[in-house]
Amino acid sequence: MPPHETSPPAPPLRRLDAADVLATLRALRQRQPVAYAAFYSSQLGGIVTDPALMVLPFDDHMVHRGHGVFDTAGLVDGRIYDLEAHLDRFVASAERSKLRVHGTRQHLRDVIVGTAAASGVHNGAIRYWLSSGPGSFELSPAAGAEPGFFVVVFGGLSYPERWYTDGLRVMTTSYPIKPPLYAITKATNYLPNVLMQMEAREHGFDNGVFVDPDGNVGEGSNMNVAFVTDDGVLRHPTFDHVLAGCTSLRLLELARALVGTVLTGVEVCPIPVAQARQAREMFLIGSSVKVAPVVAWDATTIGDGHPGPVARALRELLEDDMRQGDRLIPVPY
Amino acid sequence: MPPHETSPPAPPLRRLDAADVLATLRALRQRQPVAYAAFYSSQLGGIVTDPALMVLPFDDHMVHRGHGVFDTAGLVDGRIYDLEAHLDRFVASAERSKLRVHGTRQHLRDVIVGTAAASGVHNGAIRYWLSSGPGSFELSPAAGAEPGFFVVVFGGLSYPERWYTDGLRVMTTSYPIKPPLYAITKATNYLPNVLMQMEAREHGFDNGVFVDPDGNVGEGSNMNVAFVTDDGVLRHPTFDHVLAGCTSLRLLELARALVGTVLTGVEVCPIPVAQARQAREMFLIGSSVKVAPVVAWDATTIGDGHPGPVARALRELLEDDMRQGDRLIPVPY
Repeated sequence: MPPHETSPPAPPLRRLDAADVLATLRALRQRQPVAYAAFYSSQLGGIVTDPALMVLPFDDHMVHRGHGVFDTAGLVDGRIYDLEAHLDRFVASAERSKLRVHGTRQHLRDVIVGTAAASGVHNGAIRYWLSSGPGSFELSPAAGAEPGFFVVVFGGLSYPERWYTDGLRVMTTSYPIKPPLYAITKATNYLPNVLMQMEAREHGFDNGVFVDPDGNVGEGSNMNVAFVTDDGVLRHPTFDHVLAGCTSLRLLELARALVGTVLTGVEVCPIPVAQARQAREMFLIGSSVKVAPVVAWDATTIGDGHPGPVARALRELLEDDMRQGDRLIPVPY
Repeated sequence: MPPHETSPPAPPLRRLDAADVLATLRALRQRQPVAYAAFYSSQLGGIVTDPALMVLPFDDHMVHRGHGVFDTAGLVDGRIYDLEAHLDRFVASAERSKLRVHGTRQHLRDVIVGTAAASGVHNGAIRYWLSSGPGSFELSPAAGAEPGFFVVVFGGLSYPERWYTDGLRVMTTSYPIKPPLYAITKATNYLPNVLMQMEAREHGFDNGVFVDPDGNVGEGSNMNVAFVTDDGVLRHPTFDHVLAGCTSLRLLELARALVGTVLTGVEVCPIPVAQARQAREMFLIGSSVKVAPVVAWDATTIGDGHPGPVARALRELLEDDMRQGDRLIPVPY
């Protein structure tokens, strides 16, 4: 229809009341079942366990403007791993995003722990968000907007076992990396991350890698990337243009125990792509993927094309730390 | 508390059922009243007019990943202005964002018109979104995810009258402009836009302006920027690094009628900031702000510091087009 013609009268749309809304939300969850154990919302003032009730107002500025930040934590054998480091980053992301933090940090922690307790989940994932709240469709937060704090606990993301046994294949994404300020902020503006993952899968790869405008390695879709050089140095990109992964930061500490055996050193520095492709090992690092070996990057075979010893050793160090380290908070179920 | 100490037991959090959720959503709207006339949601399967029911599932990927796009249209005297141009951009944004469009374009148009009819609003704003849908907390759309289509009709945004009578003051934002691909896509990843507006207001300005890495003028927070040079040429930045504003595109056509009177020409070209500051007139352009004269930019006074004749003439042309042009769709209330 040419732009200047008028449209025929629209068909009448169904008017819904509260009972209809509830019924359709329940029907949606029946068509597409989900397994979220618990959802806390400061807007709702408590916890729901029925996924149909895990909702937020459409006009929350996190929904329509991306004015929200988030972070994660892992639940391992009924304890929360490394929550303080994640909360540090969460609060820093909120500050950079001009978001008012909902309550004190102690309150945030208590709600996260309380939601984990209510979930009954002993091994899984915790994710939490801060939003600037509802009240308008403008850009800046609405007058009187109450910032939202949300926590979800679910069974966790699982990656294919072959990622660890055979290694995975990544591609350099065609999507531009975010400007550094946005890349270091864990805001919900993840469209570039979504697109790079979808693109990689469309091309038959497992995931993507961002490269920065200077030709240095950036990060993965929601994971960091690191390398072992031919002379045995663990090399990680600097954190001024990629997200400071809590798992990466912790691993860079733990990896010092490997210097003298499988490593000769640990370095955080800019990594030109051409240099990175010569690596003996390459891996993705993240709180849910842990340490996953990369054996192919675009047309380049990494090392001998098989998972290497450093990836395995780092994963073991991390798993030990997640089970018996000093960064665990017990959940009072 | 040092990171390695364990948290005290969290206080019990309230467990909510469906009645509690509804009651708290209603209480939220009482504490912070809003005036949205109608909300359509494909997930709900119809229209609600009670703002407490204007919700979406928290796990919709538009909420937590920013995997959504949107667009707008104005309601003027019971008719929708320039909807086809906005729908063209909406569909293009969806394609760039790898979002599946919910139904045919005719269906989208019918739902927008139908929601406007149900709203009863004759003068206001329509905004609509496409999301990749709920079903997981991953990056890529969940298996079986049904894309969401949402429409809101509300009374419209109003800008201070002094913006038109006295002109407004803008500042060059310290926030980086989005990479071109993201800037030309109207996705919900608007954190940079939010931050630049908040920053400008914190510094006592009315709004901000992005400058690109080459030192050329970009765009405003959610408006385009244009200039009149000292020799009377209307100059607008190219659309390869800023959003192609439907209002700008239309005005660039309408402005040809002014060549020979208040204008000597119309040009779309890169505009270096230093050159732009010498402009005789500067204005912000958008579907809700229309044409608003800028009289000060950082410490630079634009022209003689008063709204100029081209801003006024363009605004009149636009208002005529919005009331009696050939791009109007009547709403069957």
